[in-house]
Amino acid sequence: MRKVAVVGVGMIPFGRRDEDSLLDMLAVASLRAMDDAGIGDRPIDAVYVGNMAAGMLNHQTGLSSALVDRLSLFPAAADSVENGPASGGSAVKNGVLAVASGYYDLVLVAGGEKMRDAIIWKVTDCVATMTHPLAEYIYGVTLPAMAAMFARLYMKKYGVTGEHLAKIAVKNQNNGLLNPYAHLHARITLEGIFYHPHAKVNNPVVASPLRFYDMCPVSDGAAALLLCPVEMAKELKKPAVVIAGMAQATDTQAVQDRDDPTDLKAVTIASQKAFAMAKLKPKDINVAQVHDAFTILEIAESEHAGFFKKGEGAKALDEGRTQIGGDIPINPDGGLKARGHPVGATGVANVGEIVWQLRGEAGEHQIKDAENGFALNFGGFGNNVLAFVLRREA
Amino acid sequence: MRKVAVVGVGMIPFGRRDEDSLLDMLAVASLRAMDDAGIGDRPIDAVYVGNMAAGMLNHQTGLSSALVDRLSLFPAAADSVENGPASGGSAVKNGVLAVASGYYDLVLVAGGEKMRDAIIWKVTDCVATMTHPLAEYIYGVTLPAMAAMFARLYMKKYGVTGEHLAKIAVKNQNNGLLNPYAHLHARITLEGIFYHPHAKVNNPVVASPLRFYDMCPVSDGAAALLLCPVEMAKELKKPAVVIAGMAQATDTQAVQDRDDPTDLKAVTIASQKAFAMAKLKPKDINVAQVHDAFTILEIAESEHAGFFKKGEGAKALDEGRTQIGGDIPINPDGGLKARGHPVGATGVANVGEIVWQLRGEAGEHQIKDAENGFALNFGGFGNNVLAFVLRREA
Repeated sequence: MRKVAVVGVGMIPFGRRDEDSLLDMLAVASLRAMDDAGIGDRPIDAVYVGNMAAGMLNHQTGLSSALVDRLSLFPAAADSVENGPASGGSAVKNGVLAVASGYYDLVLVAGGEKMRDAIIWKVTDCVATMTHPLAEYIYGVTLPAMAAMFARLYMKKYGVTGEHLAKIAVKNQNNGLLNPYAHLHARITLEGIFYHPHAKVNNPVVASPLRFYDMCPVSDGAAALLLCPVEMAKELKKPAVVIAGMAQATDTQAVQDRDDPTDLKAVTIASQKAFAMAKLKPKDINVAQVHDAFTILEIAESEHAGFFKKGEGAKALDEGRTQIGGDIPINPDGGLKARGHPVGATGVANVGEIVWQLRGEAGEHQIKDAENGFALNFGGFGNNVLAFVLRREA
Repeated sequence: MRKVAVVGVGMIPFGRRDEDSLLDMLAVASLRAMDDAGIGDRPIDAVYVGNMAAGMLNHQTGLSSALVDRLSLFPAAADSVENGPASGGSAVKNGVLAVASGYYDLVLVAGGEKMRDAIIWKVTDCVATMTHPLAEYIYGVTLPAMAAMFARLYMKKYGVTGEHLAKIAVKNQNNGLLNPYAHLHARITLEGIFYHPHAKVNNPVVASPLRFYDMCPVSDGAAALLLCPVEMAKELKKPAVVIAGMAQATDTQAVQDRDDPTDLKAVTIASQKAFAMAKLKPKDINVAQVHDAFTILEIAESEHAGFFKKGEGAKALDEGRTQIGGDIPINPDGGLKARGHPVGATGVANVGEIVWQLRGEAGEHQIKDAENGFALNFGGFGNNVLAFVLRREA
C-alpha cells in the first residue's frame, strides 16, 4: 500500500449561496485545491465527489461526470460517493485507497451540498431518509429528534448539563469568528444564550433538551482535496501532510438496535483502527475536528474517539482543554456548529482543516506547532463513521 | 497493486418485483454471492453499493449502511457509489481498488435499483437527471430521445438500418429466453417486429428511428459480487476469475460538446486501457457484455470497444458472429434489452455474467470454453464508461 499525501486543499465560504449552483461550488473548491497544490499540467487521474442529496434536492445525478466536464479533466475517472452525512469522508477514503493501490496517482476529492434553496421541511425530510425506513423514518423521527433522545440519555448517564452544551455552542461559534469559511459569524455568550433571563426566548427548545444553538445550520458549500503518493508530493510546492491512519466502521442502522444507545461503537472502532494504523495515540494529537452536527455529539465523539474517558469530555470542556490554546483543541474552525454542514462537504472540510492546521496555514484559528491531527465524519446516527489521522511530514 | 479475483456472484431475477424492497433485493443477491464464494465465517471488510436513484425513487439514502445492517456485517465499511447507469460498474471498480490497495481483503459489491413502483414519467425524468442540466435536461430531452438522435447520425454515417436494430432486439430477447434471471422472456422474431404488415403497430415508434423493441425495459433487480486477492481466492471453492484489466474514462457531459457525436470516445479509451492492462486484445475475448440500453448502443459500443472496425458491427451481426455460437458472442444473457436494466445493478450484473461464463456456469446460454471475457458499463450518454477484462485463472 502506497503512502498517500494531501497536497492541495480548497474551500469556499459555507453559508447561504443563492447565486451558486452545486456544480459552481464544487468547481471553485476544486480549482482552489488544484491551485493550492500547484500541480501545473499534471493530469488528474480520478475524481471523487462526496454528496448526499443532489438527486433529491437539486434534481441532478452524475455529479462527478459533470465536475470533470466543468473542469475539462477528460478522460479522468469520476464517481460520486454517498454515505449520508459521512459522504465526504467516504469520498476521501476511496480517493486515498485509489492512490494507495497504485492504480491512480493524482486524485481530486470534492464534497459539496446545496441545501438552502429547498424549503426547510424538505431538507429535514431529505436528511431523515438516512434513518431506518421501518424502525425510525416511518415514525416521523428527524435528526434533531434523534440527537435529542441521544442527548437525554447521555446527559443523564454522564452528568452532562445544558450548560455544557451551551458552552460547546459558544466555543465553536467564537472559533467560527476566526474562520473566513464559516457560515455563522455571530458572537454569542453563555450569558446571552444560557444565563440570560430571556435565554428561553433567544435560544428556544427545538427538540428537548436541545435548543436552537445546539444545532448546526443548514448550509450550502463545498470543499476539495488533492491526493497523491508521498513521492509525488515531494515535487509539489506545499509541505506534505500524509494520511497516517484511516478507518471506517459501521453500527446498526437503527439506534434502538444497539445494546446501549449511548455507546457510539462505530466511532470507537474507526478511531482505534485509525490510530493503530498511524501508530499514534489520542494524546499525540494536537488538533481534532469532530462532527458536531449537534453540540452533544462533540462531547460524545471526543470521548469515544479516545481523547477523554467516558463522562470526562464535559470536564475537559469546563477546563478549557478543547479551546484554541488548550491541550487538545477541538473544532478550532468552528466545527459544523459554526462552519456549517453542507452535508457532502463536511467530511472533506474536516480533513482539509486539519491539513491547513498541520501546514500552519489556518490563519487566526491556527493551533501552534500542530504536527498530528485527527478528523472524524459521522454518518447516519452513528451507523457509519470515518476517522482520519494526519501527520505533517518532517 | 494486488491482483483481484471475483470469487462469488449472486443475482436475483430482474423484472417487476412488487413484493421486494430495494434492500430486500440487494440483501438476497449479496447472500447468494457470499454463498457462491463459500466464504464461511471470513469477515467481509467492506461493502460497496452501486445505485443511482434510491433517494429520488425510493426515498432512502445510506443504502450501504442499511445493507450492512440487514446482513449483520458490522463493523464492515460501507459506501454507496453513484455514476448514473454506470453506478454498478463504478462500485465494482472501487471494490477492486480497495482490495488491490491491500487495505481490505474481502469486499462485497452489490448493485440494485427499484424502479417499477414509481410512475413511469417520474422514472424517465429521474434517469434524465444525469444529462447536462443547462444544455440538455432543460430542453426536455429524455434518454430514449438522446439515443434516437444518436441512432439517426450513426445509422446515416455507417449504413446501419432499422432492420439491424431489430436483429439486435431479436438476438438479445432470444438469448434472454435462456437466462432465468432475465426480465423479458418473450420470443420475438424479425418477421413479427420488422417485416410483418402490422409491425408498425406491434413495434411502434418511441423516438424515431427507435421503436418499442429497441428499448430496454424498466426493471427492478439486484446483483452482487465478492472480491478478494487472488491468493485468498485459491482457498475458496470456485475457480478464480481475475480482473485482468479495468479502466474508466469520461467524455463531455453534453453530447453536443463532442467534436463528433457519433464518436464514443470514453468507450474507446476505457476499453483500450482495460485491454492494455490485461495484455489482451479484443480478438482474445471469447464473450462480451455491452450496455445495450438501446439496440443501437450494442453496435456502436462493440465497434468502439475494438471488436469490429467502425461501421462493421452491423455486418458482424448479419453474419451471426455476435450470436451464441459466433466467434464473439455479445450479450449472451440477453443484455440490458432482455435481462433488464435496474440501473445500479447493470454494471455488477455484466461483470457477474462474464464470471459465470468463464467458470462454465452460464447454463443454457453458456459460451463454450470461454477463457477471456469483457464487460462494459455506459454512464450518462457515454460521458462515463467502465470496461473490465476478466480472465479465468488456469
